[in-house]
Amino acid sequence: MGKNKKFVEAITSMSEDFAKWYTDIVKKAELTDYSSVKGCMIIRPYGYAIWENIQKELDSRFKATGHENVYMPLFIPESLLQKEKDHVEGFAPEVAWVTHGGAEELTEKLCVRPTSETLFCEHYAKIVQSYNDLPKLYNQWCSVVRWEKTTRPFLRTTEFLWQEGHTAHATAEEAHEETIKMLNVYADFCEEILAIPVIRGQKTEKEKFAGAKSTYTIESLMHDGKALQSGTSHNFGDNFAKAFEIQYTDKNSKLQYVHQTSWGVTTRLIGAIIMVHGDDSGLVLPPKVAPTQVVIVPIAQHKEGVLDKARELKDRISKVASVKLDDSDKMPGWKFNEYEMKGIPVRLEIGPKDMENNQVVLVRRDNREKIVVSIDELENKIVELLDDIQNSLFEKAKAYRDEKTYSTTTIEEFKEIAENKPGFIKAMWCGDRACEEKVKEVAGATSRCIPFEQENLSDKCICCGKEANHLVYWGKAY
Amino acid sequence: MGKNKKFVEAITSMSEDFAKWYTDIVKKAELTDYSSVKGCMIIRPYGYAIWENIQKELDSRFKATGHENVYMPLFIPESLLQKEKDHVEGFAPEVAWVTHGGAEELTEKLCVRPTSETLFCEHYAKIVQSYNDLPKLYNQWCSVVRWEKTTRPFLRTTEFLWQEGHTAHATAEEAHEETIKMLNVYADFCEEILAIPVIRGQKTEKEKFAGAKSTYTIESLMHDGKALQSGTSHNFGDNFAKAFEIQYTDKNSKLQYVHQTSWGVTTRLIGAIIMVHGDDSGLVLPPKVAPTQVVIVPIAQHKEGVLDKARELKDRISKVASVKLDDSDKMPGWKFNEYEMKGIPVRLEIGPKDMENNQVVLVRRDNREKIVVSIDELENKIVELLDDIQNSLFEKAKAYRDEKTYSTTTIEEFKEIAENKPGFIKAMWCGDRACEEKVKEVAGATSRCIPFEQENLSDKCICCGKEANHLVYWGKAY
Repeated sequence: MGKNKKFVEAITSMSEDFAKWYTDIVKKAELTDYSSVKGCMIIRPYGYAIWENIQKELDSRFKATGHENVYMPLFIPESLLQKEKDHVEGFAPEVAWVTHGGAEELTEKLCVRPTSETLFCEHYAKIVQSYNDLPKLYNQWCSVVRWEKTTRPFLRTTEFLWQEGHTAHATAEEAHEETIKMLNVYADFCEEILAIPVIRGQKTEKEKFAGAKSTYTIESLMHDGKALQSGTSHNFGDNFAKAFEIQYTDKNSKLQYVHQTSWGVTTRLIGAIIMVHGDDSGLVLPPKVAPTQVVIVPIAQHKEGVLDKARELKDRISKVASVKLDDSDKMPGWKFNEYEMKGIPVRLEIGPKDMENNQVVLVRRDNREKIVVSIDELENKIVELLDDIQNSLFEKAKAYRDEKTYSTTTIEEFKEIAENKPGFIKAMWCGDRACEEKVKEVAGATSRCIPFEQENLSDKCICCGKEANHLVYWGKAY
Repeated sequence: MGKNKKFVEAITSMSEDFAKWYTDIVKKAELTDYSSVKGCMIIRPYGYAIWENIQKELDSRFKATGHENVYMPLFIPESLLQKEKDHVEGFAPEVAWVTHGGAEELTEKLCVRPTSETLFCEHYAKIVQSYNDLPKLYNQWCSVVRWEKTTRPFLRTTEFLWQEGHTAHATAEEAHEETIKMLNVYADFCEEILAIPVIRGQKTEKEKFAGAKSTYTIESLMHDGKALQSGTSHNFGDNFAKAFEIQYTDKNSKLQYVHQTSWGVTTRLIGAIIMVHGDDSGLVLPPKVAPTQVVIVPIAQHKEGVLDKARELKDRISKVASVKLDDSDKMPGWKFNEYEMKGIPVRLEIGPKDMENNQVVLVRRDNREKIVVSIDELENKIVELLDDIQNSLFEKAKAYRDEKTYSTTTIEEFKEIAENKPGFIKAMWCGDRACEEKVKEVAGATSRCIPFEQENLSDKCICCGKEANHLVYWGKAY
């Protein structure tokens, strides 16, 4: 490692090697670092600041919909994990086991939570007695561990940060409503804050969560045409309630099982931001999630008055946006590269000539447009510009996603698209798991979801030709 | 467990059984619940809301002093933990070991982090090269695990939540300054926000952190006269830098070791709030950390206009304080007990007679004073009252702490105080570990700290009679 590590080298281009382009950005934008534990990442200050913005925005949306935060233990005793049959089958193969505390061997081994349904259920069984105690609308922010063989920063890591909502309701209807409500909270958040368009829909039986009655998902499309499951919301019905005996007395003094949901998003969303908006110069951050929205780069800063002016502008802009002034002695060109790599939405250049003309130059990160604006109008222009960048990023991503979404009614064409045109494929499906598996086998695409917005492309299943029951989005996925 | 669990029963009185009084509050104020993993607690919504307020306030103070948040892995490989000799000796006996991932045995076992010095050091060794890279001022919010034999909610738990700051500096002076600066951030936070007076000082060699050059502490006094170590700040000097080879090139192109610090506070602070401010009716929360500052209890709420008025007042108060309206059909008396148990600083009562007189009744949680105020002045009175409660709690705690702080110059009197008068004991010490150990042996009190504010009670060590070098605060501690 050289002493000039701060020099921003060019990164691999997206078209040359997408995977390398991705890891180059993660590294050069200083989002993560590798640790000495395989598959566990260090989230560096810039990456963590993005996560903090995600947390802040989601947390306020959770609270606005009546949810409360709690903290459950990191460990789950083996016997507790085993209480719900499907759940343990889904998770046991990929958990980390604690077998010793200090020098002593534990009488029962503990797994490091891969998800916390079992802990919430055990707690709900204790604290829920009457219909007055319902609903319970809890959420927690924490890290979870799943022993993954192949890992990539943010997208798939042994340990990752997430939030997991866990709720208990009196009726099946309420649990269903909650499941859909939280999926929509995720979808709106992704579209409004991350500028990532998503498909909202239901997972097939094959793809649903271990122990769930039904799983809903938001699916987004990355720049390489691969899908990314970006958030899920599960309706458990009374599956877990029966396994954990979570019962309440209803208004007629009858014992009833509760109905439950869980829902989560993870640091994977940062991977989605990179792969939806990034380009060959690095990260491109939507203003609403950017830790720094405007960076001021003084030109000829040794000239009289330039730095003073830059500081004055910083103070003014700080009233309307998050702003950073780089007054280090590095060259402006170095700074341009650095902040392009970090995806800061707007660069403001101010030099002696600009000062003479009472103007500044604003440069958009997304399309590199240069805009000369009068210093008198600075705050308004910044607000307008950030707003415009946010909208443009969403529209651009949506246009790209739509362009890469194909429809077909024959399996031959499906295979041809899957092989040559990375993206979503819309095709009809009968509902049989056998057909779903066959499509994967012959075309390498998995069902992403049964979208809420159904269309009728044909009456026949793409695979077996029998009656079609659903339009399905298919694709190759992360 | 009965169906009427919501009925607030009286708790054990503090004078009768302090330990039971404490756990009664923790349970009845719904701060925590026990989990099926021994020593791990579930932090319930009300307890977690207090923690969120602590986090928010501390985090903004950390950021104001230039610190950035990061996230390090949950696991530490055994070989990494062993790199600094004193550190591993201090922590290895109390760590949880992960030995299996999925079905496979790991080639190297991993400990669940008891603290993250080793991870930060490994990262700093990679990212610090030149003096330009310094200082590194990082912090993380996470949970850590220490395999404790005896546990109590918040005070000592196998898993607990905390923040750990880890910094690297070019010089010994800067590291020392940082250590003291962060201790003062903690002290000011405890005094200004938690209304808990603290003694600032240095730990003796015997009591310092495993691997540190020096440890600084803030010590507070609980209502039972026991001390609670409430926050610590460690100066590592270059101990860890040498073990992990964290070196930078200085301005003269010479290789130098960095100097490091770490500092942390934990969910234990919630235990301190309970034991400093609580009374026989339950929790008493300082307004600045209370999730709800004002609770509105309507009187005769079935009477016309009462609930409408209560809602109107809620809207008005919400502009200046966090407020909750309890319009459930429970009896006002039940509500009074419930919110006293939860320590809500101010109760507002509004009924038909109050409405006639254009007034409300405000009741302080701390001293139960009832104040009748005109509705016209409501917002101002609430703000004043919250401010007054915050200050009164601090002054009351300080007076109590001072009253329970004893000075002595003879070991006989020391023993007599330690046996009969729970509190801090100020006494002189020569600086020898043997004397420190002897005092513990004969009087059961440990050195809490060598306070920054030194006094000269005598020229002789309380134990050996040789020349005294320090005034020390001694006490029995949690």
